[in-house]
Amino acid sequence: MSNRTKRFILPESEIPTQWYNIQADMVNKPLPPLNPATKEPLKPEDLYPIFAEELARQELNQTDAWIDIPEQVREMYKYYRSTPLVRAYGLEEALGTPAHIYFKNESVSPVGSHKLNSALPQAYYNKMQGVTNITTETGAGQWGAALSYAAKVFGLECAVYQVKISYEQKPYRRSIMQTFGAQVTPSPSMSTRAGKDILTKYPNHQGSLGTAISEAIELAMTTPNCKYTLGSVLSHVSLHQSIIGLEAEKQMQMAGEYPDMVIACFGGGSNFGGIAFPFMRHTIKEGKKIDFVAAEPASCPKLTRGVFQYDFGDETGYTPLLPMFTLGHNFRPANIHAGGLRYHGAGVIVSQLLKDGLMRAVDIPQLETFEAGTLFARAEGIIPAPESCHAIAATIREAQKCKETGEEKVILFNLSGHGLIDMTAYDQYFAGGLQNYELTDADVQKNIDELEKII
Amino acid sequence: MSNRTKRFILPESEIPTQWYNIQADMVNKPLPPLNPATKEPLKPEDLYPIFAEELARQELNQTDAWIDIPEQVREMYKYYRSTPLVRAYGLEEALGTPAHIYFKNESVSPVGSHKLNSALPQAYYNKMQGVTNITTETGAGQWGAALSYAAKVFGLECAVYQVKISYEQKPYRRSIMQTFGAQVTPSPSMSTRAGKDILTKYPNHQGSLGTAISEAIELAMTTPNCKYTLGSVLSHVSLHQSIIGLEAEKQMQMAGEYPDMVIACFGGGSNFGGIAFPFMRHTIKEGKKIDFVAAEPASCPKLTRGVFQYDFGDETGYTPLLPMFTLGHNFRPANIHAGGLRYHGAGVIVSQLLKDGLMRAVDIPQLETFEAGTLFARAEGIIPAPESCHAIAATIREAQKCKETGEEKVILFNLSGHGLIDMTAYDQYFAGGLQNYELTDADVQKNIDELEKII
Repeated sequence: MSNRTKRFILPESEIPTQWYNIQADMVNKPLPPLNPATKEPLKPEDLYPIFAEELARQELNQTDAWIDIPEQVREMYKYYRSTPLVRAYGLEEALGTPAHIYFKNESVSPVGSHKLNSALPQAYYNKMQGVTNITTETGAGQWGAALSYAAKVFGLECAVYQVKISYEQKPYRRSIMQTFGAQVTPSPSMSTRAGKDILTKYPNHQGSLGTAISEAIELAMTTPNCKYTLGSVLSHVSLHQSIIGLEAEKQMQMAGEYPDMVIACFGGGSNFGGIAFPFMRHTIKEGKKIDFVAAEPASCPKLTRGVFQYDFGDETGYTPLLPMFTLGHNFRPANIHAGGLRYHGAGVIVSQLLKDGLMRAVDIPQLETFEAGTLFARAEGIIPAPESCHAIAATIREAQKCKETGEEKVILFNLSGHGLIDMTAYDQYFAGGLQNYELTDADVQKNIDELEKII
Repeated sequence: MSNRTKRFILPESEIPTQWYNIQADMVNKPLPPLNPATKEPLKPEDLYPIFAEELARQELNQTDAWIDIPEQVREMYKYYRSTPLVRAYGLEEALGTPAHIYFKNESVSPVGSHKLNSALPQAYYNKMQGVTNITTETGAGQWGAALSYAAKVFGLECAVYQVKISYEQKPYRRSIMQTFGAQVTPSPSMSTRAGKDILTKYPNHQGSLGTAISEAIELAMTTPNCKYTLGSVLSHVSLHQSIIGLEAEKQMQMAGEYPDMVIACFGGGSNFGGIAFPFMRHTIKEGKKIDFVAAEPASCPKLTRGVFQYDFGDETGYTPLLPMFTLGHNFRPANIHAGGLRYHGAGVIVSQLLKDGLMRAVDIPQLETFEAGTLFARAEGIIPAPESCHAIAATIREAQKCKETGEEKVILFNLSGHGLIDMTAYDQYFAGGLQNYELTDADVQKNIDELEKII
């Protein structure tokens, strides 16, 4: 026991200096996003009014597999990267499984999640272009906290629309964003036309990521020298998050193992793509067999029960049309505590990969996620974010299968963030106050039927 | 800029395998703790009814400078150690100071503070001795959270008395302890004679560490196979915390610098001793000049305004008599948010060192600590615990002096924990709802006068 290594950390010189862009290696490229008015494939210039130009170019880049990480972003990465790869001996022992479980611990970032990996370059590229104000949406607040800090680092003003139910469930996250100097507004709000329209139609609307995106985009479009940023879904976010998997690959090498499975929770796809894509390049290029599993909430099951279809990325319809697995942009997810997973669609890259059978998805009920998170906390000492609990639950399912079969599978999952700001959720779980949300086929179908009108 | 290193992390093979016991090297040893009934110097056996035997021996060990860290504790340390040494470029730039500021980031421990360094060995030694239940007190909850997890690791039941004002100010810490499986009771409570007596005398008593210690000791004394553990003040806690300074010394070497000053916040002395004593051994043995600064709250100023005198470690008087700088064990500290610093006395080692001029202390008003913490958060991305804000404030004072004099001093401070569970305090600070608490000389003198009766 005494010589076993638990944490694998890369020397600073080994931190990747380029991000990996899986689009360049995909055999079937993602279908193009469309201009909703003309239905023409989008060009980077079409995105310039909303996004920093470099981010728009990265979004549609299907040719360059490797993109240099700017020096100033690498400087900031050094503050918390590499994050540790941890062998979860405690969890293995608690489960009595022969599986070897590893997790990439993104919760040690200063803001507590993987979101900083993309917040820093997004703030940086905006700053370089002379932008002064950035806006965004946030669900549970992990992305909003990361962007608030990144904006402060690069001297930008930051305005965040936080999904109302999360704003109320997790008041500390609002406080964290304010401590970093950001302005935070619960969404839907009366400060935008999108918000007003939604509140007029549904006075008790609890908010969703789709709604908050509409509000943030509208603010960006109506404010001088202001751009919008997004914390997941889009391809340039997965690009930045690839640092997770690139590091993990080197760290698995330090551990002398290679994953049979790579698991992450799934909201829009950024932490999943971040850890999975660098490994998946070996599947695409060398036929390496790895089981990639996205774990989504049973109450918001776009990958397991949605349809592959062009849809808007937001509730109001400000975004381009994206080819995605979706539940329809008017889908109103239940008030689960995993606020970061309450989104109707999946990013275009993941949607194509799922369609092509390069990955699979599982859906997990809320109570199972908290049971898994509690077991993990007691075994590993880290209280996981409700989002990350989905990855843990999927990992536990697989580890238990290994117990039955005796297989020593190597499972790698991404611990996307800690749950210290989500203790109310754990309190409610222990008090029996949480529930599962069952979706009938009719619930799922309702908004999907509307999609036919789109294209 | 591109080649500057921000974080220094030791390879696992370089993590210290022994703790450093400064008592062995001190020229003037601490005076002995006394049995309150006989006034005789305490022998380890006198502590066996309350503490695990090995911890009692460590407490009074004045001969062995190095104590082996047990293998099972080293295994657990590997999960989060070494903690990073970070060069605070962001803070330096925000201050425009020529000083080189480093901090040891203990906030990345799974439970968010340095407290786990001692919780693990304390739980371990109790387990080895066949103890089944452990009790403790906690202020802000950092120690309670650490012990709850350590108890779970080694299969012990854990009962925590949390200071009532902190229990109410920081409900998430209670939730964290419960997530790890501990029982948490706000103190003073009606579950002990000590608690009942205090509540009868002062019905609105908001609790203090001294009171919670009384309750936890009483529970240990009246429960079969149950021992008490303490998160600070005692010498064996500083011993375990020496891992901080031993790592920091190696890491400063990696950085190619040596500290001119070592700064830590001060409650009972464990994080201060932890980072300071390994450096101080070079002062004692080789005459190395280092300025050691303990930063305490102006509202609980035992080092700057207390007296050196034998006193009890708890409010009721269950502990041995300890030779300490103290405000009197009946001192009732103001309700500042730095709950971990609301303690009337200083550990016996620090008290002797302060008396001998080997270190100094500064006292800092609450508002200055939050101003410093906010500046640090925006510069470094980490929201510091209210306790740690005291160390940051003291560091900023020194860095500003360097700005005036042009000196490039190397300042090392201990970031004992993060403040993610303390966001209510930051909210109140931003809303102008926090205050300083001025102590008159009469306030300070009141409880000190009572001490004459003791010895």
